[in-house]
Amino acid sequence: MQAADLAEMAHVRGCMVIKPWGYGLWEQIQQHLDHRIKALGHENAYFPIFIPLTYLAKEAEHVEGFSKEMAVVTHHRLSAANDGLRPDGPLDEPLIVRPTSETIIGHSMAKWVQSYRDLPLLLNQWSNAVRWELRPRVFLRTTEFLWQEGHTAHATHDEALQESLSIHAMYESFAREYLALALVPGEKPPSERFPGAERSYTIEAMMQDGKALQAGTSHYLGQNFARAIGIEFVDRSGERQPVYTTSWGVSTRLIGAVVMTHGDDMGLRVPPRVAPTHVVVIPRSTDGEVGALARRWVDELGRGCLNDGQRLRVQLDRSEARPVDRKWRWVRRGVPIVLEVGPREAESGHCSPIFRDRLDQSRDMAFDEFARGAGDLLDGMQRAYLEQAEALMAASTAAATGREEATALLEAPGWRTPFVRAKWCGDAACETAFRTWSATIRCIPTEQSGDEGRCAACDAPARTDVVIAKSY
Amino acid sequence: MQAADLAEMAHVRGCMVIKPWGYGLWEQIQQHLDHRIKALGHENAYFPIFIPLTYLAKEAEHVEGFSKEMAVVTHHRLSAANDGLRPDGPLDEPLIVRPTSETIIGHSMAKWVQSYRDLPLLLNQWSNAVRWELRPRVFLRTTEFLWQEGHTAHATHDEALQESLSIHAMYESFAREYLALALVPGEKPPSERFPGAERSYTIEAMMQDGKALQAGTSHYLGQNFARAIGIEFVDRSGERQPVYTTSWGVSTRLIGAVVMTHGDDMGLRVPPRVAPTHVVVIPRSTDGEVGALARRWVDELGRGCLNDGQRLRVQLDRSEARPVDRKWRWVRRGVPIVLEVGPREAESGHCSPIFRDRLDQSRDMAFDEFARGAGDLLDGMQRAYLEQAEALMAASTAAATGREEATALLEAPGWRTPFVRAKWCGDAACETAFRTWSATIRCIPTEQSGDEGRCAACDAPARTDVVIAKSY
Repeated sequence: MQAADLAEMAHVRGCMVIKPWGYGLWEQIQQHLDHRIKALGHENAYFPIFIPLTYLAKEAEHVEGFSKEMAVVTHHRLSAANDGLRPDGPLDEPLIVRPTSETIIGHSMAKWVQSYRDLPLLLNQWSNAVRWELRPRVFLRTTEFLWQEGHTAHATHDEALQESLSIHAMYESFAREYLALALVPGEKPPSERFPGAERSYTIEAMMQDGKALQAGTSHYLGQNFARAIGIEFVDRSGERQPVYTTSWGVSTRLIGAVVMTHGDDMGLRVPPRVAPTHVVVIPRSTDGEVGALARRWVDELGRGCLNDGQRLRVQLDRSEARPVDRKWRWVRRGVPIVLEVGPREAESGHCSPIFRDRLDQSRDMAFDEFARGAGDLLDGMQRAYLEQAEALMAASTAAATGREEATALLEAPGWRTPFVRAKWCGDAACETAFRTWSATIRCIPTEQSGDEGRCAACDAPARTDVVIAKSY
Repeated sequence: MQAADLAEMAHVRGCMVIKPWGYGLWEQIQQHLDHRIKALGHENAYFPIFIPLTYLAKEAEHVEGFSKEMAVVTHHRLSAANDGLRPDGPLDEPLIVRPTSETIIGHSMAKWVQSYRDLPLLLNQWSNAVRWELRPRVFLRTTEFLWQEGHTAHATHDEALQESLSIHAMYESFAREYLALALVPGEKPPSERFPGAERSYTIEAMMQDGKALQAGTSHYLGQNFARAIGIEFVDRSGERQPVYTTSWGVSTRLIGAVVMTHGDDMGLRVPPRVAPTHVVVIPRSTDGEVGALARRWVDELGRGCLNDGQRLRVQLDRSEARPVDRKWRWVRRGVPIVLEVGPREAESGHCSPIFRDRLDQSRDMAFDEFARGAGDLLDGMQRAYLEQAEALMAASTAAATGREEATALLEAPGWRTPFVRAKWCGDAACETAFRTWSATIRCIPTEQSGDEGRCAACDAPARTDVVIAKSY
């Protein structure tokens, strides 16, 4: 994370500073997701960061599930004291810095929704959120994180359930096709559901160390929140009833998933489709013939496209550091292609691009030839990253029949087979039996074999396929 | 604000919910400004929302100026109590929810900047911020607001001063050419400067009631923050010295400026260049011939452009409300053009667009003719909004020579001449003399006549032109 200039933990325990290269990656994720979210009919809005304590008290199961580690605002003023400044102006009611916004958005929905004509209500918010982390880790578990949280209200169970499934599918295709993550999509077992949800869908990504990372969740909340908050509508037959709601989100944690999937000994490798810069051009000098050629190359490369229609993002590195230091800085950041320009290139019209996937300084080629093929090369790199991630997941997944085999895999030293595909009988005690090995049922994969087998925990007959793994 | 569906104050005193139409306007502002900020060489990053109390204590003048009305986080947990939940897990050091980020970004700069090679450091952040408002007002003074805050560090006084002036010019051109605001750009007098700044530049916009609204500020901070925080660099001659910093920002307050400049009795009128939707198409039915025609019109209009190159944003209104209700809802929101589609349009191929600037249902015209000219019509509307705002400002500005004339204008009933152009001798007592009439020197306009006159407060000889007005 540090070598790649993405972020650093700083200032306040558990909080991070997202540096320009890391934030650029987040902007790419935001832009692509925002487009998809809007294409599905959602509108962006913004709700207050502060939640009155009473709102949380209403949704007991929700709060219970949230471990109660939240930032609490108790005062609205600083006053001078002998030893500096001290909190003053105590609030009548403490405020919580949002850990998630179901309750506050629900209270607005209750006001806005009257009849079936007001439904569906399809909202999304891009914001920060705070969950006090006792064991923080950059991007994966930070006290403050950035995210999008979608919140929708519907007239029927079917429509709301379909909404959570559509978003789940959208997250899956984005994470696979843009972030090149190796994924198992599926449903969470009951104990791993979002607090207050009836169903939680997840995409579980495999990291290089074999651990699973929950990369994006979509929840069907049924009428639970609507009942607790009082979000009601008059349906077509004139009857008053609670709406059905969903919520779903992805966060800056996705950046952590990219790093732990595509990082190598040199630093990060950013999948081209979400790279803030596709090609960086490093001139030995910004003046004279070399400088002029560098600027021309930036322009010409900028006319290229990826196969999803994105224009190539080409950047001229004007920094004053030595060219070799600049080159390695960009390699560590994981920019897909580095192009150096010096007197030799100016004379020959040839170039020797460095491709981040292979990292060998490629053979000399005519710049025009390189420029014509740059988009295809980047598309190929995108495919290669996904193939590598999926190959690792395939090689690091093992099937187990019954308790003995599952236990052997879970106890295997070094976790060489980290994703265990096994059966689960559906029993709650069996669901949590893998905690002995710090593992959990990560999900019930969408693709089910339908075969009968034996439960990985109790050996009883079982049909449900599950994936068991350690996780972040 | 309410009729236009922009936002509402809700949930927590002083906080607002920004509804989709209001947030869409903010997204337009963001997109255009972000493009300009990046074009000037800045990079986006993100810093923690929580500021340790000790950071604030270091910059005494800064904190002093900030009225100390801030949200203070004192606990990191909720615990169950007899009567519900109560704050628990007291923090060793209270945290402040950022009212602005000079101190926290400055601490990162201190770490990142070593030599002149690391400068300039040009950062920008899009985020929320919190200043506890005792007299909140939607968009203008809200406890939480959204904004961008730029923070830069430079090797020399000249370069940093030039940075604050470039941003000031950028804000002015954006506010005038995109938001169609009538502005007086200039420098703040000493008592109105940002706490800790050596110079503060402002664009003062005139609202319809004649009051001034500070719409965007750019501050030259000299070495004040750098000295307090310890942001030092080794210059080209090997000498260690503090950097020179700037900071600058605009916020969701700009939406308030748009409303109070362009609103009329019917609701809002949104300047086309920042309208989330340029043309809304309202079909009487989404099925059959009418529905098909509506979709075709949406497609065809979407090929048009504004004269700044923006594609026309065209939206199909699929809601179930009665067409007439939908029409007026869009008029209240201020969408530039409303286009109804019914059987008559389907038969004739003609349309009767409603233009929000004139609000007369225009004569029937062939759709093709309308579609060809839609971009020009919108550009014309953009110009008309600016002309109206500037005409009002010209008509509502009066010059005063000396104390007697200035006093007469400031005391005039009804504030028919709200912007008073007068002279100021430069004396601190004279600067604040207009508070008797709840007025202040809003700025020292960039354009100065150079003539000698008499101070509006003390009648002494004075050369400095100032604008005196009431403000939000």
